[in-house]
Amino acid sequence: MKKVEVIIIGSGTAGLNALSQVKKYTESYLLINGGFFGTTCARVGCMPSKVIIQVADDFHRKHIFKRFGIKGADNIRIDNNEVMEYTRDIRDILVDRVKSSSTDNMPTDKLIKGYANFINHNTIEVNGEQIEATKIIIATGSTPIMPVDFKRFGDKVISTDDLFELEKLPKTMAVIGLGAIGLELGQALNRVGVKITGFDFLHNIGGITDESINKTAIDLISKEFDMHLGQNASLSACDGGIKVHSGDNEIIVEKVLLSIGRKPNLDKSNLENIGVKLDKKGLPVYNINTMQIEDKPIFLCGDASGDRTLLHEASDEGKIAGYNACAKKITKFKRKTHIGIVFTSPNIISVGLGLNQLNKSQTATAEMPMGPVSRALVMGENKGLIRIYADKKTGLLKGAQIIAARAENLAHLLVWAIEKKMTVNEMLQMPFYHPVIEEALQGALYNLKSKLNLKINTPILELPIL
Amino acid sequence: MKKVEVIIIGSGTAGLNALSQVKKYTESYLLINGGFFGTTCARVGCMPSKVIIQVADDFHRKHIFKRFGIKGADNIRIDNNEVMEYTRDIRDILVDRVKSSSTDNMPTDKLIKGYANFINHNTIEVNGEQIEATKIIIATGSTPIMPVDFKRFGDKVISTDDLFELEKLPKTMAVIGLGAIGLELGQALNRVGVKITGFDFLHNIGGITDESINKTAIDLISKEFDMHLGQNASLSACDGGIKVHSGDNEIIVEKVLLSIGRKPNLDKSNLENIGVKLDKKGLPVYNINTMQIEDKPIFLCGDASGDRTLLHEASDEGKIAGYNACAKKITKFKRKTHIGIVFTSPNIISVGLGLNQLNKSQTATAEMPMGPVSRALVMGENKGLIRIYADKKTGLLKGAQIIAARAENLAHLLVWAIEKKMTVNEMLQMPFYHPVIEEALQGALYNLKSKLNLKINTPILELPIL
Repeated sequence: MKKVEVIIIGSGTAGLNALSQVKKYTESYLLINGGFFGTTCARVGCMPSKVIIQVADDFHRKHIFKRFGIKGADNIRIDNNEVMEYTRDIRDILVDRVKSSSTDNMPTDKLIKGYANFINHNTIEVNGEQIEATKIIIATGSTPIMPVDFKRFGDKVISTDDLFELEKLPKTMAVIGLGAIGLELGQALNRVGVKITGFDFLHNIGGITDESINKTAIDLISKEFDMHLGQNASLSACDGGIKVHSGDNEIIVEKVLLSIGRKPNLDKSNLENIGVKLDKKGLPVYNINTMQIEDKPIFLCGDASGDRTLLHEASDEGKIAGYNACAKKITKFKRKTHIGIVFTSPNIISVGLGLNQLNKSQTATAEMPMGPVSRALVMGENKGLIRIYADKKTGLLKGAQIIAARAENLAHLLVWAIEKKMTVNEMLQMPFYHPVIEEALQGALYNLKSKLNLKINTPILELPIL
Repeated sequence: MKKVEVIIIGSGTAGLNALSQVKKYTESYLLINGGFFGTTCARVGCMPSKVIIQVADDFHRKHIFKRFGIKGADNIRIDNNEVMEYTRDIRDILVDRVKSSSTDNMPTDKLIKGYANFINHNTIEVNGEQIEATKIIIATGSTPIMPVDFKRFGDKVISTDDLFELEKLPKTMAVIGLGAIGLELGQALNRVGVKITGFDFLHNIGGITDESINKTAIDLISKEFDMHLGQNASLSACDGGIKVHSGDNEIIVEKVLLSIGRKPNLDKSNLENIGVKLDKKGLPVYNINTMQIEDKPIFLCGDASGDRTLLHEASDEGKIAGYNACAKKITKFKRKTHIGIVFTSPNIISVGLGLNQLNKSQTATAEMPMGPVSRALVMGENKGLIRIYADKKTGLLKGAQIIAARAENLAHLLVWAIEKKMTVNEMLQMPFYHPVIEEALQGALYNLKSKLNLKINTPILELPIL
């Protein structure tokens, strides 16, 4: 039987990052990939969605042209089919870049195309051949959830795996599932002319847990398309389309985009053969700081783990799995502070801990509406809300949720501040230029400061003594 | 003679911030303001310029519409006069907000309208009345430089004090002085249809000292309008306009915008009467950490000091001056790390120290071009360059200069990192979401890291051991 030191199953973001570590320590490895090459992100995830969103946001700006003294907005039209073709062109460039710098040029004795199944904890089978490995890394990625109830409607119910392949966009579409992906794609598709109706069984959209941010997000985005929240949506066949039912609401649309989440690609791997307990979702128990499954010589990383399904986390997880698969001793690594961005307009973001994760009596909260923020006013985007949370006793920033223009950038400033264990007072001593969106955050920090009873060792809050 | 504890001369950003401190300690103060009320920023500075820039940038996006599948770009026109009217409307809102929250409602015994002159170090004269004060704060602001050579051409040569009052924009305009203000206004005016030609006696634009960034900035922005650099510009009268001469270049334009800097409003204050030495520019010597002039009971802050003519610095200086004017003991405060933003498209920024301020042998530099940055590509703005500098021995980030989309936001991340004394390796351990412009900075940091020979106490660069 063929034997290697490390097998990596899956050549997506996690698998390739695992490979980057493994290569440092051994030449005895195999990368096995079933299905498409290229990462989920580049093929059907972050990248093609951002292309449609960018086009949609540019097209949407025509609504402000009149106010700005720009003429001709009424005659601006969009060709959906061209948008989709452009999206695929950019996507292909980005997918090609991933592949050409990774799997395209791998020697055939290192890369196997096929689906791997576990025979036991250190043996897999691929294309009918059994291969033994000292360590195995599972980085098989994820697939959009598509229950059989929905699958039976054929190409009338699509996922993000199908969306970007559409040659022609429908005139009407229901988006079921208004998490990050459903919400940002729903808004973008609506902006480029697909009449969208949104559904979610939760009352919260975009993964937001702060009720004020959630309410503001619903208020702002439902001005663009209708949303039905808090009830399950079901489908039935009908002439000329497909009918979506949700509570008392019924609507007929051409297509349904189902965006209710992604499930780890573990069901065809015969995981039960490795001799570990699987939870009710069929997932093994692993350590998020080592990526090791129980005490087995097997590591789980990326979307396949079912947690933190974000590219930058998949990169970290791949590196941890790759390193620990080669190291003599398993090492625990510090994972990153949470940052989540919904690329709607305005952006919706969350960093650090949510109010549902914080002790209410120990937490001070404050907010800043975007209305009076002068730069946002100038941009014509002074809508939204900032909410930030700090520890009452220490003043340490703990988390934030925001709906605002450029919140994706504020999110980085905030998550770095949390990583650096900054207090509200320290943050107020940082430079804030003028006029910038960061000043809205400054406003929120002043409001939060006024709710904290912190000792300040300078007579001027913003300026430390030299 | 009327006597008070503190007189503040000038009700702009610095003066109002000084007042906010003074009010905490005494009721015995006077605010004296000559000329317009409202801050330079809101009246004729950062704010109205940002309005024109925003409109110009939105109008300019039509050039990408075709690529995006958006039709009708050819029929989009702009009405300059409406742009100017809109600019003034927004400006008036913002000026009113400043005034209504400050001087509008001040009691008449606290606020005097008039120009103050020094009689001696603790006496001023205003509207013919002499008033004595224990401490005096000078916050008289600045005025665009307009040499007599240029002034004689009347309204054909304007400054930013005049620009926003124009009912009708000229068809052609020369911008003399391509620092931050000239460059961003020149680009914006050109984008809204004024044919701009730029001049500067320096070879560097936008205040940039990094030669690679300067070259990239000149390459990118001179695609939009011609620039003549490295030679003085002079003017002569001619039929139908005004002629600008610079080396072998001659061009006739309708108007000239002179943006060669601002000078402190100190020439009418009879500063010589306070008994301090004035330098050749007529400016007194003061301490930037206390704002005190020599050992006098007089403090200088804001644009009047001639240094750091930025709103956020004027706020700090006003607070320091106000506090020290009231305190029993003069306190030195830490000033902020430099951040400068030119709101061109792409943004041009500088933070921390420039290469001209750093020891070459102790400094490592690295760059990242914006070309391959996937989010920038999606935005249609993958042009520009990031350059960052770190200390070779410690890896501490020392400075950066950038021309890139969203560089105003990167500037905040970078200047906070410098304030928090972060090393290149620490920065690489921070979260970078995907796909965001911050990843371009991540690329630059990886490049810089590879040039530093730093000890890393984790086997995976991006992940500290738990």
